[in-house]
Amino acid sequence: MPKTPALATDCIIRDGAGRVLLVRRKYEPFKGVYALPGGFVEIGETVEEACRREVREEAGVDIGALQLVGVYSDPQRDPRGHTVSVAYLVRLPGEVTPHVGDDAAAAEWVEDWRKHALAFDHGQILADAEDLADTLP
Amino acid sequence: MPKTPALATDCIIRDGAGRVLLVRRKYEPFKGVYALPGGFVEIGETVEEACRREVREEAGVDIGALQLVGVYSDPQRDPRGHTVSVAYLVRLPGEVTPHVGDDAAAAEWVEDWRKHALAFDHGQILADAEDLADTLP
Repeated sequence: MPKTPALATDCIIRDGAGRVLLVRRKYEPFKGVYALPGGFVEIGETVEEACRREVREEAGVDIGALQLVGVYSDPQRDPRGHTVSVAYLVRLPGEVTPHVGDDAAAAEWVEDWRKHALAFDHGQILADAEDLADTLP
Repeated sequence: MPKTPALATDCIIRDGAGRVLLVRRKYEPFKGVYALPGGFVEIGETVEEACRREVREEAGVDIGALQLVGVYSDPQRDPRGHTVSVAYLVRLPGEVTPHVGDDAAAAEWVEDWRKHALAFDHGQILADAEDLADTLP
């Protein structure tokens, strides 16, 4: 198999009031900074399975149907090396309480993500997800 | 960087009459069979750039705006190993004549792709792309 960019997935989890479930990164790069829950896809799992697994591992919640938001592939978007992320949007009731996992420093509902610094290109992904959410029934 | 599935891209090119531009594969797997133009993403290029490059290399045409169709990641979809493909839809005038490149055995407009055997999961990708095309203005 040829060597290709690394493959990752990120998840935009919104509640009915427009809050977003974010994690604080436990490790570099962007240690301590808010980020979308997500991570690398493992060989042998679908991207959707990887997304659900990462959200469960980092934020302790189970998510349902995933809506594709976009594919983010700028070679500079991750300082560790070229990483392509597939972003999904999911709706979760705000009453669901996240439980931070071993891979994150915090997991919490955030009222207005635009007020915070965000890791990687996650601000752009969140903006795109909001545009998509506005078009959904 | 962790080892993740290989990353590829495939392109659904339709003309105004619903014809689809397909290539015949020059190499195994699926040698001689119709397939969407596409291939592996190189480190340092975006997925969109890879899509345009592969279409140019295999079918000799330049394509414009790409519309994301889906991300196909079943671990069994490529017999060579776990390969995730990002599929894009593009519209091209039917008067454009493809010119087969070194990496393909043929490149041609196909009237009804449902009448032919297709490589990989390209039948599913084409069906999804048609559904998407029906929703576009």
